Amino acid sequence: MRPIDALVRSLSEARVVTDPDVIDSYARDRTFLEPGRPLAVVLAASRDDVVATLRWASEHRVPVVPRGAGTGLAGGAVAGDGAVVLSMARMTAIRELSPADEIAVAEPGVITADLDRAAREHGLMYAPDPSSYEISTIGGNLATNAGGLRCVKYGVTRDSVLGLEVVLADGRVLDTGRRTVKGVTGYDLTGLFVGSEGTLGVITAATLRLRPAPAGPPATFAAEFGSLRDAGAAVSAIIAAGCAPSLMELLDRATLEAIDGWRGIGLEPGTQAMLIGQSDAGDGQEAARRMERICADNGASFVAVSTGPGETEELVGLRRLAYPATERLGACLVEDVCVPRSALPAMITAIEAAAARHGVRICTVAHAGDGNLHPVFVFEHGAAEPPPEVWAAADEVFTRALELGGTLTGEHGVGLLKQRWLALESGPVAAEVQRGIKAVFDPLGLLNPGKAIQQLSDVQSLPSRDL
Amino acid sequence: MRPIDALVRSLSEARVVTDPDVIDSYARDRTFLEPGRPLAVVLAASRDDVVATLRWASEHRVPVVPRGAGTGLAGGAVAGDGAVVLSMARMTAIRELSPADEIAVAEPGVITADLDRAAREHGLMYAPDPSSYEISTIGGNLATNAGGLRCVKYGVTRDSVLGLEVVLADGRVLDTGRRTVKGVTGYDLTGLFVGSEGTLGVITAATLRLRPAPAGPPATFAAEFGSLRDAGAAVSAIIAAGCAPSLMELLDRATLEAIDGWRGIGLEPGTQAMLIGQSDAGDGQEAARRMERICADNGASFVAVSTGPGETEELVGLRRLAYPATERLGACLVEDVCVPRSALPAMITAIEAAAARHGVRICTVAHAGDGNLHPVFVFEHGAAEPPPEVWAAADEVFTRALELGGTLTGEHGVGLLKQRWLALESGPVAAEVQRGIKAVFDPLGLLNPGKAIQQLSDVQSLPSRDL
Repeated sequence: MRPIDALVRSLSEARVVTDPDVIDSYARDRTFLEPGRPLAVVLAASRDDVVATLRWASEHRVPVVPRGAGTGLAGGAVAGDGAVVLSMARMTAIRELSPADEIAVAEPGVITADLDRAAREHGLMYAPDPSSYEISTIGGNLATNAGGLRCVKYGVTRDSVLGLEVVLADGRVLDTGRRTVKGVTGYDLTGLFVGSEGTLGVITAATLRLRPAPAGPPATFAAEFGSLRDAGAAVSAIIAAGCAPSLMELLDRATLEAIDGWRGIGLEPGTQAMLIGQSDAGDGQEAARRMERICADNGASFVAVSTGPGETEELVGLRRLAYPATERLGACLVEDVCVPRSALPAMITAIEAAAARHGVRICTVAHAGDGNLHPVFVFEHGAAEPPPEVWAAADEVFTRALELGGTLTGEHGVGLLKQRWLALESGPVAAEVQRGIKAVFDPLGLLNPGKAIQQLSDVQSLPSRDL
Repeated sequence: MRPIDALVRSLSEARVVTDPDVIDSYARDRTFLEPGRPLAVVLAASRDDVVATLRWASEHRVPVVPRGAGTGLAGGAVAGDGAVVLSMARMTAIRELSPADEIAVAEPGVITADLDRAAREHGLMYAPDPSSYEISTIGGNLATNAGGLRCVKYGVTRDSVLGLEVVLADGRVLDTGRRTVKGVTGYDLTGLFVGSEGTLGVITAATLRLRPAPAGPPATFAAEFGSLRDAGAAVSAIIAAGCAPSLMELLDRATLEAIDGWRGIGLEPGTQAMLIGQSDAGDGQEAARRMERICADNGASFVAVSTGPGETEELVGLRRLAYPATERLGACLVEDVCVPRSALPAMITAIEAAAARHGVRICTVAHAGDGNLHPVFVFEHGAAEPPPEVWAAADEVFTRALELGGTLTGEHGVGLLKQRWLALESGPVAAEVQRGIKAVFDPLGLLNPGKAIQQLSDVQSLPSRDL
């Protein structure tokens, strides 16, 4: 019996796919990275399927690459030769939703926005909202500790996770955390799994915190600035004033030009940045007007508060156009640096300098309240991977982010893409400790190999076709 | 040369105390637990002192018990025979306070309230406020992941920690986390250290998140209820309505009787619970009135919103009297269960039943919005440890908390005191994984032995004099 037949036999409900074309579609994420040739895809339908798959993988020493919807931007779900892809997309049950305790227990395949909608039926919300939330899964969000637009007010995915059900590499089931909002029994294993990109175990259920949904629609403002410094000062002043925006996005000139070139928004020649913010508080309209005043006081050339849902839709719609407008210009390497909030103008300036120096188009959108920037490096459609000048510009951007006290990745994760810069941020002690933790959970090194943490063999070259 | 002389020589600034009486005062916390006879106390003045102490301890295989101010309530800082106590109380520098980025870098000996006061000078606050915050240290708060009154709105200590500087057991220095509000580079080592009770490393600095301080004084309400169920329903309704209280404390009848017997507050015979809440929002007075209405709608027999600082002081003063009033009645075992919010009335009912069944006086105060209860078991002043009926009642309380989906400890930690119940909450897989993590950081098992996680030799008996 071939090992794969033993796997098929051990599964009760899961489907196993061995068609190479189908496998290939399950071996990619949203990056340009080319996968290897995995053995098979297991479409798990239950925790038992996951247990059986991991037991089998341990027995036969087969690498396992867990995945959600494959919307990742760092190569975290890209699978290599000989691996089994473990898709959690069919585990879509919301096992429990308790309005009284404001918690839900969701399986990893639940679509993020579906959980939010289920919560809204009870006057609650699930706060984390990565841009992909209509197609991303809870499991993927947990694996990357996904952020989103609302996290300026409500925090990242970690801040909404109370406990996890995890299958370890050898098939043992581990329950972490709790159903209560507080608790300090033992080490924080929950936090350890969140953001670990499937390298420590496979999450089969999560106890998630819900929050009261805002009473009414949010109030929205938009402001245009003639200088990045002014826009950055306005962001800092808004946070310092305690306005508690529920969204605060900044679009740089390159992004605004991309949108203007597509949709003709009448971009003024002097506009360097646009800031769009919302408040979902009870006194939201007042908060939006306060934020408007702060923008005006910080030199905004234009600022307005929306007076109704139509205008709000138009303003937020601009933000939504940012990626599609940029994608029209070429293939995209979407990056994700995060800097202390006060360094936002310096970081955007550095990005613009890198773009100019290397002749690369970089359009930047930022979750400004968090100091989290997404510089999108544009290169030729159809290229197998970004050309050298893009990598050179990216090197410069990452180096500058770290110099400014920032980090390589605010919310997308390390995956394969950021391996080559990891040593710049985390020292050798951290790398050693993290490999030690990995070995506790996955001594055979079978779970999503090569991702999340610095590898022993320093990855100097770019990950490419031969993963 | 005796080992201790080698230690003294290796230290640059630290003082080493070997007077047995002084040592004894550094070997205790706020529990009744009797320490052993430690070798010495190192009063560290710098990170280098900590490095030297831990290198020496590794070389000579000497256990090290790190400590802050010793205000712990779980025995986490109680030191055993032959250990070296490593006091961090003299490392009191606030290395940096950046209003623009809303962060502070503090050494572990900084008094919690001092950091808050330093932040207030810039219109900011340090949110975590354990009841002991005028005497507790940041390091102790980090070690236990301390909560407090404000955490119903602002979260626990973990939620204010961005990064750490840690000395590992072998003297290596590890930097974790970052200076940004978001970041997902590598595993969450920061979260792993927070709440680990000094068993994984010794924190020598923390990058902490500050928040905008509320604009004005908080608005306060108080309500009395004739039944616990009504009080619990009011708590749930207040949270569900999105009132975002910045404090919401519940006092049970036994606590109110203790206060009434001391200060004569005119306690009504039918009053079973009192709820005291605050809002520190801009529209706080309106929020307090909303909470008042919700209490009235849920059957409060009396409810009032304070009209000025004098009345607010009086209402919050009642909460402050709870512990001193209870301590007048005898020695106290202060416990710390946390249950899903909806189980609050059931938990208090179970506590009252346990008190009645075992003839033990238990006064309970709860951080009601978090479902975190502090049942205080009263026993005879001067007793070396709680009598059997107290342990029997505590057994019942812990068992019931877990049945209700709760946890053994919301914010005080495991220490030595909760070792005997740990296996009830965390299964064998979690225990094994946690011991594996401990071994990565501290392979010789020298850092605060016997604390935080389940030990290999199941602790069946109570910790006593022979630690």
